[in-house]
This record gives sequence, C-alpha cells and structure tokens, in this order.
Amino acid sequence: MADPRINIINERLKEVKHVIAVSSGKGGVGKSLVASVLALTLTRKGYKVGLFDMDFTSPSTHVILGLEDLQPKEDKGIIPAQAYGLKYMSITHYSREQALPLRGADVSNALIELFAVTRWNTLDFLVIDMPPGISDATLDTIRLVKGIKFLIVTTPSQLAFETVRKLIKLLKELKIPIIGVIENMKMKSSQLIRCQVENHGVKFLGEIPFDTKLEEAIGSVRMLMETDFAKKLEEIASNSFKGFSFERLGACACKL
Amino acid sequence: MADPRINIINERLKEVKHVIAVSSGKGGVGKSLVASVLALTLTRKGYKVGLFDMDFTSPSTHVILGLEDLQPKEDKGIIPAQAYGLKYMSITHYSREQALPLRGADVSNALIELFAVTRWNTLDFLVIDMPPGISDATLDTIRLVKGIKFLIVTTPSQLAFETVRKLIKLLKELKIPIIGVIENMKMKSSQLIRCQVENHGVKFLGEIPFDTKLEEAIGSVRMLMETDFAKKLEEIASNSFKGFSFERLGACACKL
Repeated sequence: MADPRINIINERLKEVKHVIAVSSGKGGVGKSLVASVLALTLTRKGYKVGLFDMDFTSPSTHVILGLEDLQPKEDKGIIPAQAYGLKYMSITHYSREQALPLRGADVSNALIELFAVTRWNTLDFLVIDMPPGISDATLDTIRLVKGIKFLIVTTPSQLAFETVRKLIKLLKELKIPIIGVIENMKMKSSQLIRCQVENHGVKFLGEIPFDTKLEEAIGSVRMLMETDFAKKLEEIASNSFKGFSFERLGACACKL
Repeated sequence: MADPRINIINERLKEVKHVIAVSSGKGGVGKSLVASVLALTLTRKGYKVGLFDMDFTSPSTHVILGLEDLQPKEDKGIIPAQAYGLKYMSITHYSREQALPLRGADVSNALIELFAVTRWNTLDFLVIDMPPGISDATLDTIRLVKGIKFLIVTTPSQLAFETVRKLIKLLKELKIPIIGVIENMKMKSSQLIRCQVENHGVKFLGEIPFDTKLEEAIGSVRMLMETDFAKKLEEIASNSFKGFSFERLGACACKL
C-alpha cells in the first residue's frame, strides 16, 4: 500500500523542478560544503534555489553560511527563511527545541514532517544536504520524493569510496538517477576514483583540489565564494549539469 | 524497568577491564584509524585487546587492517577472530548477509545482539569503533555497557568540533566518563580546539599532524604502524592513559 504521505510531500514539491540530493558514503568528505556552495552558485546563475539541510547527524550548512540565527516562519505550514537569494531550511530548526537527541524513528518522522510542511513554492532547484551513508532518512527520502536525483561526493580515500560503492549499488538497484560523483579534497594526481566511478556506469563530474583556505571561509558567504573550492565547483556544475538541467530549464518551464 | 539485556551484555563483558568507545561528532575525522591503531598499539604493549567495529554507517576497520576475509566462529555465541594479536569483531560480519540496508531499529537490535553473543573472554581493553555522532547505537551502547569510557576524535575544523561539542554535552549530562579528545589531521599551529576542549572541562590528549602517507598504508598493518600517525598516537596513548589504565592495570588485576 502506498504511503499516504507521498501525496502530501509531492503536492508540496509540485512547483520544484529538480530535487538534488547531495550525498556521500561517509561523513567528512565535504558534502555540506558542496551542497551549500552549489546552492549559492545556482542562485548566482539566476535560478530559484532552495537549500534543505537534512543531515541530522551533523547539520552544518547554517554554520557554513553563517545563518545560525535565521528562523523560518509559520503560515499554513513552514515558510523557509531567505538568505543570499536562496530559501533555507534546516533540521536544526526542528531539533533545537528537543532536549534529547532524537531516536531513529523520530528522526525519520521529523524529516518526513519537515518535507510535508515546508512551503518551497516555485524553485528551479531544491538542493538537499543529505545525511551521510545509507540511513533511514536516505531510504525514506528516496521512497517519498518523486524524481529525486543524487549527486555523490567522495574523497580520494579508499575508505570513503568503499562506502560510495555501496550507495551507488543501492541507488542503481532502486533505479534512482545519479547525476554523478565529485572527487573532493584531491591532493595528488590519480585516476583511481574516476576509473572506479566510470566502471560502475556512473558519470565522474570532476575533482576539486584540497583547499587549505576553505576552513577560514566558513561562516562568510563572501569569502566562501572566492575560494578555489567554489570556483572549481562552479566549473563542475556548469559543465556537468548541461543537458540535464541548465539548458533544459532555459528552454522550458514545465516540470521535467 | 531495567532492560534485561543489560545483564546478559555485562555478563559477557565481565572479564573485560576497560571498554573504550572511540567516538566522534561526525564522520571523516579519522576515528576508525585511531580505533584500529590504538588497538594495535595496546596489543604491542602486551595487553589483551579486542577491537569491535560497531560503525554500521561506514564500517572500515576491516579495510584498514586488511581483514576482509576474516570470519568469527560460532560456539555457544560468537568467538571473535584473531589477527595481529588482537580479537576482532565487526558489524560487517552481520550486515554482509543482509541483502538490504538495515533500518534504525534493526541496526540497534543487531548491535545489541552482537554485544550479547560475542565471547570476548578476558581482555584488558575492548576498543570500540563507534558510529559517528549521536545515533541510536551510541545511546544504546551507553545504556547497556557499564563502565564504558569515551575517547573522542576531532579535526581542527569548526564543523567537526561543533558536533563534538554536542557529544561532550550529552556524555556529561549522562555522567559518562570522557578519557579526552584527540585533535587529528592538524595542519597548522592553533590552540583553538585545545582551549575549547579544556573549557568544557575535558582533557585534551594531544594532536596528530595530517599524515599524507597514511592513505597508502591502509590495508597493511606493517606500513600502518610505521606511519607518523601511529607514532604520534602511541605517544598520546602512553602519556594520556597513565594513571587510568596502563599503570593501574600493571598494579592490579581486578576489574576497575
């Protein structure tokens, strides 16, 4: 039997053209930085963008973007706050009120509830900062959000890629589209990750060199967008999203 | 009402002197490497050591130690495999047989079951590679394993420490002993993490410089133990465990 919440959530998302789940096999690979900077980059290109931090394991986009004090409003649901031209929503808006950490089923319910009540309205892109790995939240999101596409972040480390392999396998089994894989924190030249990604029949979107200045830019959008990290990510986004989103969005306004 | 499984688990662990939960606020900080190398270091110092990989989100100690093919045996419970002088057990031994990823409650039950059936027998140290952050598994482990002590790994990154702060807060509220915090992947001199850790009334155990050669050593215990990472961790362990474990273990054989 179909989950009745699927209809509610997809009614909420009906004016959202693309839902991009920025994901990773494990934590610490720069997933939240990629999600944040990707959302900002798309905004600067003139798209209507939402950023939804669903990483209940370590929500950090509010720290990255310096949005600690931003709060959504309530009006027949939740209206995301606006900052830097994008609509912003985070699990922290929910979990901050909780005295104790949420247990598994509660996390799942909280995320589903947030999906069901948040009024994104018209968006070209909803960028989701997913929890790392394959958690209940990942499985629920896949099950509930129609047309979701995954963008996977890894590092050159074998340990990170081992977990990406599992995620790719799951997504392929469930027939969920994978935009591709970004190799972050690259320190030396190697084709190893590219080869492995392509051997899985997944697009390798590009590599981002390890950026020692990134840490200092955390909390300042101005500094963040001037980093080599942001420049490289912009280049990857411009090249890789061609044909699937940028161009088609320009050509038609209908839900793809 | 007390959970009846507490008795079963603590009966299993009654000959284990110290249970050390190697933990982190988020993934990607080197927690599994610290757990693996710490377990090897203690083994080389002559202690009886067990390593239990409970990080179902991205189990990796079997990759780090090159133990992919090692299997535990069954005999009135599960007898951990032996390798490099230590007893080894991993959630992968359980999850490999599962076709689909486990959901929250199943993960929790699987971990509790593994705790309840694994026959560690006599150990000086049981080193646990915990899942990152505050998950159900963390809460269950705290609830079920008497006398557990936490060793927390972070990086110099604000994003990593933000999550460590939450973990420290939780552990202090629950009155769970914290051995201290290790700052891993240090790239430049800064007292920021040390100050913040000490401001929380927690011991700062030391810092480990970013080791570019570590990645190549993954899978080879010989190479791993020759890295600067391993040397620095051995130094930290020797200094920091003084008085709480090394010396007292030498002086008395009773359960502390």
